Amino acid sequence: MRADARKNRDHLLVVAGDAITEEGVHVSLRDIARRADVGLATLLRHFPTREALLDALLRTRFDELTATADDLAASGSPEGALLSWLADCVACTREYRGVVALMTAALEDTESALHSSCVTMRAAGTRLLARAQAAGTARTDLDGTDLFALVAALAWLGDQAALAPRAGHLFDVIAGAILTNGGAAR
Amino acid sequence: MRADARKNRDHLLVVAGDAITEEGVHVSLRDIARRADVGLATLLRHFPTREALLDALLRTRFDELTATADDLAASGSPEGALLSWLADCVACTREYRGVVALMTAALEDTESALHSSCVTMRAAGTRLLARAQAAGTARTDLDGTDLFALVAALAWLGDQAALAPRAGHLFDVIAGAILTNGGAAR
Repeated sequence: MRADARKNRDHLLVVAGDAITEEGVHVSLRDIARRADVGLATLLRHFPTREALLDALLRTRFDELTATADDLAASGSPEGALLSWLADCVACTREYRGVVALMTAALEDTESALHSSCVTMRAAGTRLLARAQAAGTARTDLDGTDLFALVAALAWLGDQAALAPRAGHLFDVIAGAILTNGGAAR
Repeated sequence: MRADARKNRDHLLVVAGDAITEEGVHVSLRDIARRADVGLATLLRHFPTREALLDALLRTRFDELTATADDLAASGSPEGALLSWLADCVACTREYRGVVALMTAALEDTESALHSSCVTMRAAGTRLLARAQAAGTARTDLDGTDLFALVAALAWLGDQAALAPRAGHLFDVIAGAILTNGGAAR
């Protein structure tokens, strides 16, 4: 990519990130283009779909989460590693209200620009889950998709302003359900 | 209400119910009016807000759920009653994709037309939860708002098409987290 194209792309990402943080993921692409002072066609040339835009916005965090999962899988208690990673995942999408629904849909939709990232994240979670299951500390009737769903539900709860004061407690309850001892708080 | 006003209101409710079932709760009110062949002002005279429309659509089910909670509180095992009622609650919103987010917001928003219904539902759930807690079968660090949040999360998961085949299993996991024995499946 030429330097000016890269600059334009970076500018679009910053503007889109702000717009999505303010309005949620269903903000109109036309509005994003207008805020960035470009035509819709220019925006779509860089990011053909809403999912492509979100994948670009979240790319660094997705990569960090995958790297963190690898680090955690090599150290610490299996259940501590799993819970710590789940908390990171929930935090990762906090800025972009509504993105978890698109990520959940992308799991099964190979055409979605978010598909590959979501499948990679699910695989990372599956490794941490399998390690805790092998250690006998996570229930064995869950798989990586269940784990993804529970994280998505927690992220959705975190999006609900009325429940914000309870986010930590609800995390303990739902994440605790993954563990065989039900989590420390029970 | 005069007979023809009642008839117009009923017609609007049927049309709105279909539109929301097809498009989700964020379908435009203008589209609903157009489908019903009336002006937006007429729709708004009957239902001043989206929440008022949804409250009218869900009124019968909300009343049934409250009555069911009263019946269940008087019979059967406390944890069986609680789980059965939670399943009914999750099913109640299934037709109207997105309504749980509005209901969750309405819990704290006394101006919302859904506020009173949601507070009534939370109170009904709180009674069933308290009974199971008194019997030692539900964890005691949860209150009615936590219960509402868990039901909302389950309803949201049920809205996600990609996770539909897992809805029952995810219900067992999350609802099981409410019980002191973690549910039967663990």
